[in-house]
Amino acid sequence: MSFKLLKTSKKSKARLGTLKTAHGIIHTPFFMPIATKGSVKALRTEDLKKLGAEIILSNTYHLFFKPGMQILKKAKGIHGLMDWHLPVLTDSGGYQVFSLGGNKEYGGEKKNLVKITERGVEFRSVYDGSKHIFTPKKVLEIQEAIGSDIRMILDVCSPSDSSHEQAEKDLNTTLRWAKASQTAHVETHNYVSLPKSKHLLFGIVQGALFKDLRLKSVEALTKMKFDGYSIGGLAVGESMPEMYKVLDYTAPALPQDKPRYLMGVGYPEQILESVKRGIDMFDCVIPTREARHGRLYLWNSPSLRAKRSNPAFPAKFYHTVNIDSAKFAKDFSPINAKSKLPELRNHTKAYLRHLFSAQEPLALQLATLNNVEFYLDLMAKIRQAIKAEKL
Amino acid sequence: MSFKLLKTSKKSKARLGTLKTAHGIIHTPFFMPIATKGSVKALRTEDLKKLGAEIILSNTYHLFFKPGMQILKKAKGIHGLMDWHLPVLTDSGGYQVFSLGGNKEYGGEKKNLVKITERGVEFRSVYDGSKHIFTPKKVLEIQEAIGSDIRMILDVCSPSDSSHEQAEKDLNTTLRWAKASQTAHVETHNYVSLPKSKHLLFGIVQGALFKDLRLKSVEALTKMKFDGYSIGGLAVGESMPEMYKVLDYTAPALPQDKPRYLMGVGYPEQILESVKRGIDMFDCVIPTREARHGRLYLWNSPSLRAKRSNPAFPAKFYHTVNIDSAKFAKDFSPINAKSKLPELRNHTKAYLRHLFSAQEPLALQLATLNNVEFYLDLMAKIRQAIKAEKL
Repeated sequence: MSFKLLKTSKKSKARLGTLKTAHGIIHTPFFMPIATKGSVKALRTEDLKKLGAEIILSNTYHLFFKPGMQILKKAKGIHGLMDWHLPVLTDSGGYQVFSLGGNKEYGGEKKNLVKITERGVEFRSVYDGSKHIFTPKKVLEIQEAIGSDIRMILDVCSPSDSSHEQAEKDLNTTLRWAKASQTAHVETHNYVSLPKSKHLLFGIVQGALFKDLRLKSVEALTKMKFDGYSIGGLAVGESMPEMYKVLDYTAPALPQDKPRYLMGVGYPEQILESVKRGIDMFDCVIPTREARHGRLYLWNSPSLRAKRSNPAFPAKFYHTVNIDSAKFAKDFSPINAKSKLPELRNHTKAYLRHLFSAQEPLALQLATLNNVEFYLDLMAKIRQAIKAEKL
Repeated sequence: MSFKLLKTSKKSKARLGTLKTAHGIIHTPFFMPIATKGSVKALRTEDLKKLGAEIILSNTYHLFFKPGMQILKKAKGIHGLMDWHLPVLTDSGGYQVFSLGGNKEYGGEKKNLVKITERGVEFRSVYDGSKHIFTPKKVLEIQEAIGSDIRMILDVCSPSDSSHEQAEKDLNTTLRWAKASQTAHVETHNYVSLPKSKHLLFGIVQGALFKDLRLKSVEALTKMKFDGYSIGGLAVGESMPEMYKVLDYTAPALPQDKPRYLMGVGYPEQILESVKRGIDMFDCVIPTREARHGRLYLWNSPSLRAKRSNPAFPAKFYHTVNIDSAKFAKDFSPINAKSKLPELRNHTKAYLRHLFSAQEPLALQLATLNNVEFYLDLMAKIRQAIKAEKL
């Protein structure tokens, strides 16, 4: 078994565990910084190690076009390409097909260039407009070329406002593709003879906001026996109560002995709330993308009252600042006095504000380092809180 | 004396020495990476230390507008702002006034918005079009706010194709400003009571390509007794033989016991040729700017013949590559196998090419690290060669 459940919280459904992959063990719950195109934007591989990242996520869609499968194979996958020798998870590329390909201006008129067929999904490349089809097998072939440790099946992500009819149709397609993916995974897989370090394949739960469809999805995927289960189609426009409600009935229905991955989530409080509902894995562009716009995630000092009552996470445990705001021009306090990185301890907010104002590339590095450290620290604190029965 | 001349080559006019400043000793001949706006583009302060930079250069013009004198003073100068505690040299800002302010589209018509008067130089800010005047005293006040260790006087940089009349007029202005600068330096200087660690003021030799004017400039400035002498108005469009000719008669005329700085030069072979003519200090945007366009400076492996004859610098000691070229797509050799940085030893050319192709910010970091390391290595090899009587 790749996943070991070490502990379930007495206060919530939060879980503590480890996930073993071909490139090492990851402590759950964890957050994956996103290396969209084979690099966490503005960071070095060495930075990720220093910050204690145990796994990163990369995007199948982008790597398929750049650098392409041929170069990926020659590079010995993304691990060789990036000189990153810890675990990597890849998505299926399907999400980018929809988010980058839908309703584009093309040939003078707007049309949806993405077409779902039984075989797969047809689309045009965002890079050069060329026509492509991603099938359940194709995306696993690409993921094999990438050499990722955890791989996703191709799925149809229903919008949050889908009708029951549409969501059911999408779900049925996803389930048929899930079955095809399992066959394809074996066929494309070079490591089947090494069960202990084999690459993991995750099924993806869909069903929009409909309980019956979500449970049907869980039941069907569970029967197929995946190495882990992703929950897709959330954080795509629905309200937070709606999202938490889906998690409330979906997570407990999933097998206890497999890892659960909530795709694309989210803000710190969303991660915290989802962990309490039994989620083990997260990824999100927020820390890296917002860093590039000067938005920093910072810990609050615990108030006296919070210290006395000693909760793991007080109501407001963090805040964000727009570091490019004029109010930081003369703030010579460190970016983060408690950072493990000398860069963030020694450089001041005033300097970072100056770097953003002067559009210096170093601004992106420092802001991204800060936010990725915040997110990884958040997960470490969450794991600590579960251990200490405080979550 | 801040400058110690340790050795003059027997084969050329190359000199080996040390320059003592308020923030430490620098070994001459040296090259200064350029931190235009308080950051060497895409590098961290920590990177510069790892690469062995002993001094950096920053631009008075840009720092005057961003972050401005008030913030610089509060930050304890550029050393505090950047968290860089080794020497810093600043130019006077005059060069940017001319290069950024001349012949701009303004109010519907093109005009030269830069006006030289006896008092100083009037111009409009490249940031917001606001009117300003830089005087000899003003630029030293700004440099005092920056807290730089080595400061430049305001000068008039004559174009390389100036007439004798124009060049002489410019030179006379520069010489009057030089005198005013010495007075201003004392007035704006907070460290006059600490002669051993005082901030150094350099005069600037002008005179375009006219020997009589260059020698007149040297004579007048030498009489004024500056801490060092810059040679300005070169590498501004003239041919290399013309530049070397000016150095051939200018450098020997300068005092032996003061450092000589050739402003804005240059390509590796130009630095090498200028060192042979007695120059001690260099700065140039080439390594950092070309890195951002994917142009890498790389050492050649010495040929068998070169090894036998054992010259310090064979005819072709380096080459450049455009790393974003398709021919590097499958080149999995290290960026620089002999680099002192693990980033450059462990990452491949194929990865760096991919990063440029995908427009990843990491591309700029790796390319800049490579080029700055090349230039600093070049200077170390030059110093070694002078020591070993091979230059």
